[in-house]
Amino acid sequence: MPYRQLIESCLADTIGEGGLGAASLARLLEAAGPVLTRLAESGADGSLAFLAAPRRSDDLAACGDVSRSMRDNCGDVLVLGTGGSSLGGQSLTALVDRGSGPPDGTPRLTFLDNVDPHSFDVLLEGLDFAETGVLAVSKSGGTAETLAQLLVILPRLEAAVGRDGVARRLAVITEPGDGILGALAETYGCARLPHDPELGGRFSVFSAVGVLPAMIAGLDPEAFRAGACDVLDASLGAATAGDAAPALGAAVAVGLAQERWILQNVLMTYVDRLATFGLWHRQLWAESLGKDGLGLTPIDARGATDQHSQLQLYLAGPLDKLFTIVSLETAGLGPKIEPERAEGLGLGYLAGRSLGDLLDAMARATADTLARNGRPVRRFRLSELGEYQLGALMMHFMLETVIAADLLGVNPFDQPAVEEGKRLARDYLQAAGGTAS
Amino acid sequence: MPYRQLIESCLADTIGEGGLGAASLARLLEAAGPVLTRLAESGADGSLAFLAAPRRSDDLAACGDVSRSMRDNCGDVLVLGTGGSSLGGQSLTALVDRGSGPPDGTPRLTFLDNVDPHSFDVLLEGLDFAETGVLAVSKSGGTAETLAQLLVILPRLEAAVGRDGVARRLAVITEPGDGILGALAETYGCARLPHDPELGGRFSVFSAVGVLPAMIAGLDPEAFRAGACDVLDASLGAATAGDAAPALGAAVAVGLAQERWILQNVLMTYVDRLATFGLWHRQLWAESLGKDGLGLTPIDARGATDQHSQLQLYLAGPLDKLFTIVSLETAGLGPKIEPERAEGLGLGYLAGRSLGDLLDAMARATADTLARNGRPVRRFRLSELGEYQLGALMMHFMLETVIAADLLGVNPFDQPAVEEGKRLARDYLQAAGGTAS
Repeated sequence: MPYRQLIESCLADTIGEGGLGAASLARLLEAAGPVLTRLAESGADGSLAFLAAPRRSDDLAACGDVSRSMRDNCGDVLVLGTGGSSLGGQSLTALVDRGSGPPDGTPRLTFLDNVDPHSFDVLLEGLDFAETGVLAVSKSGGTAETLAQLLVILPRLEAAVGRDGVARRLAVITEPGDGILGALAETYGCARLPHDPELGGRFSVFSAVGVLPAMIAGLDPEAFRAGACDVLDASLGAATAGDAAPALGAAVAVGLAQERWILQNVLMTYVDRLATFGLWHRQLWAESLGKDGLGLTPIDARGATDQHSQLQLYLAGPLDKLFTIVSLETAGLGPKIEPERAEGLGLGYLAGRSLGDLLDAMARATADTLARNGRPVRRFRLSELGEYQLGALMMHFMLETVIAADLLGVNPFDQPAVEEGKRLARDYLQAAGGTAS
Repeated sequence: MPYRQLIESCLADTIGEGGLGAASLARLLEAAGPVLTRLAESGADGSLAFLAAPRRSDDLAACGDVSRSMRDNCGDVLVLGTGGSSLGGQSLTALVDRGSGPPDGTPRLTFLDNVDPHSFDVLLEGLDFAETGVLAVSKSGGTAETLAQLLVILPRLEAAVGRDGVARRLAVITEPGDGILGALAETYGCARLPHDPELGGRFSVFSAVGVLPAMIAGLDPEAFRAGACDVLDASLGAATAGDAAPALGAAVAVGLAQERWILQNVLMTYVDRLATFGLWHRQLWAESLGKDGLGLTPIDARGATDQHSQLQLYLAGPLDKLFTIVSLETAGLGPKIEPERAEGLGLGYLAGRSLGDLLDAMARATADTLARNGRPVRRFRLSELGEYQLGALMMHFMLETVIAADLLGVNPFDQPAVEEGKRLARDYLQAAGGTAS
């Protein structure tokens, strides 16, 4: 497996009364058995879209065509979309080293997931539309922010490359049928890739929604999907729920919620390239579990940085949080500190050490200190980080979320509460000249 | 006042039983009276460092010298530091429009607040040390991450500009006395600005710690401090606690925590330029209040983006959150959507609207929907955003935090719990060749 999960420091046997009792864990793992069986059946018969997405390869040719065209013709590519239409692609492309610009042969990718007028003014001023491509992503094809972004950009793109030129510069990902984004694609005759109607945004990263931006950025979609498939095989083929890492993670989280009133889940990643992954996970967990008055609050944190911001609260505040520390084997990596410089300043502990040694020690010390203070900590460890490992990580957390939803008794695939706000925003816009309070 | 705060939708009279009762609010405001009086006294006699910092001007000449030297000689300036040594400067410099690069005459500022070895490899490869300046910030002068960053960078800087050149390229901000960072500054003969020993990192933004990076980026420190001073005058000179916006905010937050078990405080900013401010606030609130088993969890969120990520949980999850929606008057701002394009697609509600109209409608709709669903919402509204308004906002939240700490009965100025982890990390580093679990 491309990662290792250790849950010992979540258990009462290890950390005392803040942890989960052995009997409770056993009960929850037994309860997770049936959902694992159902997931395995759905995985085999292809009836659950998020399990099927990483096993596909028939969609890569169409993604490759768009990706090649963008890479050949564009210095900038704007990815329009919000929530699940954006965070997967953002997480994947965070793997690319940018330095002072994108790697040779790839355009600069900019994910636009908001409609801040000031940010747009600055963006539009700095863009050369003669060399800009646009990828617009909306499952329904009717997301107000995404359509507004596109309607602002289209006249500028058209002015630069002509109406016919737009056909080669614009691509959309949206459901089949007659949504607005699809209609726009038809008007311009541009590439239109299908968004599986059964695949909610937060579960879409293994489809074109995540894979196409990754390909434009020069990443390997097959390695990404292979990581997910290996996690699926290992988890859904496990002999017992206790042998399936995502079931174990879900059982711990739900058990601590039900028996210890621990409703906040902190995902603390000690890897800069996983910062956006933390935001992706935050959506996955919040939208999937937050309903019917239930739900656990996902909190993303960055190590070692947030040791100087959140750790005081984590260690000494209320005992209401479960921690997942995600770290990478960084010992020996990165620039080293010259021994004589460190020793000359009385910093013997840094002498000859690399930044990777320091980060590694920080991750370990934080996890150990949380556990010593009776706070439940799960340790998540990667030996390397690339497309394959990120794919594994993302599938782990998707499975964990779906299993946790089953244990809580909520439907992980809907998000009924957000419609009211959308309607209200449209009403306010329609009521011309209204000013906000 | 440069902002408006509305707390009506936090009250039971408005939103029902999820809100705070009028009697409870009155009780908490009465309890806030004495701390406001004490703060007013400390403000008058200069005995509380965070109240005195924005009233100073004697430190601007020294900041100006360093700032001019960096701007004249450097294309890149690295700001080394973490937590409160970094987040204030990051929040302030987020006001600067970057487009495809920093404004003319200012260097590119990069805040290094972590020790990820991969990020450092990428950074070091892309830098021209012949044109790079370094500002290192550590109150104690002994922060492991900041010293490690500096010890990695110094040999490279020395190789590029010579040992003597470092004197003109390096500046430090640290406490007076014989800390390690101060010793290094003395060795190189570089600029050393004092960090007030009485001023904790999370309260330091109005000192050189926040102001110097802002000046390097071309911002106006006096306007920033003026915003804070106006909030101090209005709040500490208020006739009653109910007339002091920070006391009102603190009373609502603490009241909901004590009487409704609402321990999570979501700060949702509908302004891209305030995203880092959200992280700054998160440290302020967490480290100041999270102790003695008490504390409220700060959660930062971005509007409208997180409507597509967290809003489902916020509306339909447990009733355990207080929301503060920070928005800017953006109606009419930013690019507009051509009416015929929108109408042709059946998007009448977007016809002729600007992105600012849309964002404004979203902020209003989200706040209203939360309130309609019985969730307590405070509305925070800015008419403009610049140094003055950000200074006002930051001082508001500092006062609110200190008052909330008093109401909870904790000391807002210490952070005793984080020492154990620091010791452990040093031990792990010293134990050579240890690998993390």
